[in-house]
Amino acid sequence: MAVPPPARPRCLLPLSLGLFQGALLLFFALFVTYDEPSVRAEDVNLVANQLYGIFPLFQDIQVMLVVGLGLLLTFLPRYGLSVLTHNFLLLNFSTQWALMLQGLLHHFHHGQVHLDLRNLLTAEFAAVTVLISVGAVLGRTSPCQLLVVATCEVPVYLASEWAIITRLGVLDVGGTITIHVFSCYFGLGVSKALFGAARQPVHPKETTTPRSDLLSLVGTLILWVFWPSFVSVLCQPGDAQHRAILNTFLAMSASAVTTMVVSSLLERDNKLSPGHLQNGSLAGGVAIGAVADMAVPPVAALALGSLSAVACILGFKFLTPLLARKLTLQDQCGIHNLHGLPGILGAAASAVAILVASEDTSRSRFSQVSPVGGNTSEAAWGWWGDRGAGGQALCQAVGLVVAIGGSLLAGLLTRAALRLPCLAQPPERLCFDDSLYFKIRDQAESLGPGGTAEEGALALKERV
Amino acid sequence: MAVPPPARPRCLLPLSLGLFQGALLLFFALFVTYDEPSVRAEDVNLVANQLYGIFPLFQDIQVMLVVGLGLLLTFLPRYGLSVLTHNFLLLNFSTQWALMLQGLLHHFHHGQVHLDLRNLLTAEFAAVTVLISVGAVLGRTSPCQLLVVATCEVPVYLASEWAIITRLGVLDVGGTITIHVFSCYFGLGVSKALFGAARQPVHPKETTTPRSDLLSLVGTLILWVFWPSFVSVLCQPGDAQHRAILNTFLAMSASAVTTMVVSSLLERDNKLSPGHLQNGSLAGGVAIGAVADMAVPPVAALALGSLSAVACILGFKFLTPLLARKLTLQDQCGIHNLHGLPGILGAAASAVAILVASEDTSRSRFSQVSPVGGNTSEAAWGWWGDRGAGGQALCQAVGLVVAIGGSLLAGLLTRAALRLPCLAQPPERLCFDDSLYFKIRDQAESLGPGGTAEEGALALKERV
Amino acid sequence: MAVPPPARPRCLLPLSLGLFQGALLLFFALFVTYDEPSVRAEDVNLVANQLYGIFPLFQDIQVMLVVGLGLLLTFLPRYGLSVLTHNFLLLNFSTQWALMLQGLLHHFHHGQVHLDLRNLLTAEFAAVTVLISVGAVLGRTSPCQLLVVATCEVPVYLASEWAIITRLGVLDVGGTITIHVFSCYFGLGVSKALFGAARQPVHPKETTTPRSDLLSLVGTLILWVFWPSFVSVLCQPGDAQHRAILNTFLAMSASAVTTMVVSSLLERDNKLSPGHLQNGSLAGGVAIGAVADMAVPPVAALALGSLSAVACILGFKFLTPLLARKLTLQDQCGIHNLHGLPGILGAAASAVAILVASEDTSRSRFSQVSPVGGNTSEAAWGWWGDRGAGGQALCQAVGLVVAIGGSLLAGLLTRAALRLPCLAQPPERLCFDDSLYFKIRDQAESLGPGGTAEEGALALKERV
Repeated sequence: MAVPPPARPRCLLPLSLGLFQGALLLFFALFVTYDEPSVRAEDVNLVANQLYGIFPLFQDIQVMLVVGLGLLLTFLPRYGLSVLTHNFLLLNFSTQWALMLQGLLHHFHHGQVHLDLRNLLTAEFAAVTVLISVGAVLGRTSPCQLLVVATCEVPVYLASEWAIITRLGVLDVGGTITIHVFSCYFGLGVSKALFGAARQPVHPKETTTPRSDLLSLVGTLILWVFWPSFVSVLCQPGDAQHRAILNTFLAMSASAVTTMVVSSLLERDNKLSPGHLQNGSLAGGVAIGAVADMAVPPVAALALGSLSAVACILGFKFLTPLLARKLTLQDQCGIHNLHGLPGILGAAASAVAILVASEDTSRSRFSQVSPVGGNTSEAAWGWWGDRGAGGQALCQAVGLVVAIGGSLLAGLLTRAALRLPCLAQPPERLCFDDSLYFKIRDQAESLGPGGTAEEGALALKERV
Repeated sequence: MAVPPPARPRCLLPLSLGLFQGALLLFFALFVTYDEPSVRAEDVNLVANQLYGIFPLFQDIQVMLVVGLGLLLTFLPRYGLSVLTHNFLLLNFSTQWALMLQGLLHHFHHGQVHLDLRNLLTAEFAAVTVLISVGAVLGRTSPCQLLVVATCEVPVYLASEWAIITRLGVLDVGGTITIHVFSCYFGLGVSKALFGAARQPVHPKETTTPRSDLLSLVGTLILWVFWPSFVSVLCQPGDAQHRAILNTFLAMSASAVTTMVVSSLLERDNKLSPGHLQNGSLAGGVAIGAVADMAVPPVAALALGSLSAVACILGFKFLTPLLARKLTLQDQCGIHNLHGLPGILGAAASAVAILVASEDTSRSRFSQVSPVGGNTSEAAWGWWGDRGAGGQALCQAVGLVVAIGGSLLAGLLTRAALRLPCLAQPPERLCFDDSLYFKIRDQAESLGPGGTAEEGALALKERV
Repeated sequence: MAVPPPARPRCLLPLSLGLFQGALLLFFALFVTYDEPSVRAEDVNLVANQLYGIFPLFQDIQVMLVVGLGLLLTFLPRYGLSVLTHNFLLLNFSTQWALMLQGLLHHFHHGQVHLDLRNLLTAEFAAVTVLISVGAVLGRTSPCQLLVVATCEVPVYLASEWAIITRLGVLDVGGTITIHVFSCYFGLGVSKALFGAARQPVHPKETTTPRSDLLSLVGTLILWVFWPSFVSVLCQPGDAQHRAILNTFLAMSASAVTTMVVSSLLERDNKLSPGHLQNGSLAGGVAIGAVADMAVPPVAALALGSLSAVACILGFKFLTPLLARKLTLQDQCGIHNLHGLPGILGAAASAVAILVASEDTSRSRFSQVSPVGGNTSEAAWGWWGDRGAGGQALCQAVGLVVAIGGSLLAGLLTRAALRLPCLAQPPERLCFDDSLYFKIRDQAESLGPGGTAEEGALALKERV
């Protein structure tokens, strides 16, 4: 099966990536060092304990993003190598790009940049938005286009995060608004920009197989298990972090059970849809982020988890087809159902929680961390002090609007960059197929000249 | 391939699960809160450190139960989605159900229930018993039947755990007696109740494939790696926990090597059986639970690991066929070989260890934790003080008898609930098949009207 | 398909393994105990905190070796069960064997051996060398041959590690020289000894499939995620460990991106080669080990990661075919590209870093741990004090030469053991095939007498 390559534009990827690596090296050489060593002996234990507190959670998050999210996307049976690789590339590229941008901003204010695990985490959170956004255009975009999306999204995310958390003082420890809602609408904007004109036909290779659904479900389970680490890693240590872990667990547990209820009610013969399971089980984790460390009662976490799973599955069943029909909006992975709807629910819940919570209890979860690692809790506390619970609740709503509006706009504007003539779209016939990006040997030919009849039969059996 | 659904009873699942979720919300709204925040500044570090100590182990256990155990069960090649999903559902349902029951018990004694990570862990241990038990009837039971099993098993487990640990003062930090032996005989009781009348024929879809064996082996390896966390999570911090980790590692390492020895000795041409590997490698972890934190010498852990692997594989080779023939006892996953026999060995080992150990050394591992998080170590200490090593060893034996007798009886009694007319058994023809529970698109039909000949060929190739 | 077994020699495996288990039990019974319990109350917290610091990293390393490395090797599509199992067996056998040897050495100097998590880790590091080395001869060797390799390699590794770290005072916290370079050249020596005479033809079952490449890539990703734990686990707690984690992350991130650049530049149509991705992404982790905890600037880690990825991929593209042609050197997994070339780069980098670093900053990473758990940092400090930066840099070079020379020689000498008449090589026709070592039921025959036509059709479909 001869696959004619889309000619020259392909070598853009190594060239631009190579240039970027050079720029990164230069930037690090000029501006970045590690923290000063803590010379005093009594500090060693403290530093070590802080490290022991954050490092296992950091590793959990890495597993989520690299293995869990990668596997979740392998539901396209002939595109598994590509999604794993593109996910891995985008994570690394976007983290490096966010480190550079964060560092530049910091450099102009404070001089030398001191790298630590916390900076790295905030840079990875920027990368998470990219990984989520590209889910909307999965399979029909080239890696070059994905890199352009990442290049545009990371600075917009950093700006939006600064506006929402630092300026507005929105409380969102798990990234419900700043990460999930933002990346969802950014991704939809990109999708509209790329495929807005005409509705995409269903591609024969889009169909999942039981085997690809199984791998994808394993990815979901990995994400499900480690989600509490993602939500709680930047919490204030102690009670707030403990609460964030428990709330996230409760929300996700309720999501998992509710997903099965709703999915089997909606499908013929009460069968489950693998796609519902793969997404609905995680909806609670998306929604809980904004309230996870607040002093809400446990029942609120359960209820929010259930509600968001319902919203997610109803979205898959009714909203996605509707948007595709009315707005010709392409959303390959259903990111609007998993990140958009539960994110909005979570933001609304945070406003309600603030109004309901007594001033006393809410005090304990003032612990937002700014992108460059500083702790703005005192500032945030001051604001709340001025504005009261009502004002803070309003802030949450304004933050949500800023996230949606800004990202949607920026996603559409990315259109200009994505329509550059050098960025060829993969031809429809070759979409969703690993053979476009990977050197995969054709098995019949791999037998070579020495292949006997018996070996041929073996190889045939092996392919089966 | 038209599959006629077993008509109405199927919608029982969403209805009953939905009702349960409602009851859970109500219960949490009325009775459950988080711990009081620790207001004093000096406590924050302590709380944080305790959290850092337990949380990574909690995550390890979650990976074991959700990913490891799920994958281990995918050895049925056409039933992978179903086992992963049923395992996931049962884990969440049973944990929630155990939280409710624990909470109710606690509520009547002490008022408000304070949720923390330790409660959650003990609730998950109750769920583990369900996950093990259903292994005996895997593939031939509907999710509704599995939920009935869970509903019955969790309260019986809580009662048995109370009787064995709190009343009898049995030492069993890793759950050898209370979890493994109990769940094994409960599962066998359920299996006898469901399939006792006639011997089940071998189903064509029961046969494993190299691919399904591979995934299942990956599940085993994940369980193998994280087992020390499972055994040691509730140990007394410090030396006892360190010892529990090392003992578990040694036992499992010995199991792994011994499994290969025994399996290749038993099979024709010294080949290995994938099923032996998948189970035997874990036998040491089951057996070591009761003695893990005792001051036994390392050689005891190695010997126990080897012995339990031998028992497990001999069980697979000789006992399971014998039980099937003589007692028409169906044990799909061989839980009697992995959990029953090594569990009994481990209980016996704990009695011997207590008799052998000097009073001095055994003192350090008095750290049993009761289901609602209290620490009964002082009580346990008092009992041992009264009863001496001989009395304590006798207690271990009595605990074993209680676990076996109670669970077998309760498993048989579950028969009444399982024979309810509304709980239809899946028809034999559709057992071990994902298509009964999942909306899996038939691939030929998924090409749709626009599918060209070339696309059809592609799809065909993809299926291969 | 009747596979005639290679007659008697096969039962050597269970016999020799069984004997070894017996010897291990005897050794443990005679010489090994746990550490004395820390009786004083104030120690408990300290012991617990130390455990919480090291245990999560220990588990990460276990996941890497058992799951990550195992999956990485499943790129041979019909040999997955065997590689997972052989990897698992070798890890356990070699760890036990290293524990025995370490214990014996320790016993003759200090009497009773006290087992702790740190001993276990150093024993596992010895096992890692075996797991790497056998990559060179994967698929064409029997488990018995692999055990002979392990038996020979572990003592040589312990001697070489003692010479390089303890005697020469080489700084190599992540095992770049002592583990990666050593095991690479040992493996190549073994390969030369086994297959030196004639060039091995390409075997039809060597060809990867997209599915096997996918599983292998998942293994790579797991290794990639947890590599920082591997490098930093034995670092001095505090700043040095923090730096080691960050340096490893940066090096691996640079490797991942650079791999995509270089691989797509080298291949036709700018496609990626799965093999390049699976290996190149990890090259940075291999190279960074020797400098990870030194006070190098972050840019050095990035540059080293990029360079080692380039070296790795160029090795795959040009060096491996060259070595196969000129020296008839068989390197099945390309261990020379992943462990040899990046390891040499890393050793060179450590010498440069020592020359460049100011005396002041280098002081903080003196924390080499000897194989039996003692801390030789003071001794190392004394040496450096005497020899100065230049002398230390020279030491690094000498250490590299010792590792290469010693391992190559020892690997060749293993030839004598491997050529024993009782160690039959698997016949070429049956290489790379699980059916040689596993009892895999032929699916056609598994239908049994009761199989109806419909069931036969189902089973056929299932095989597809």
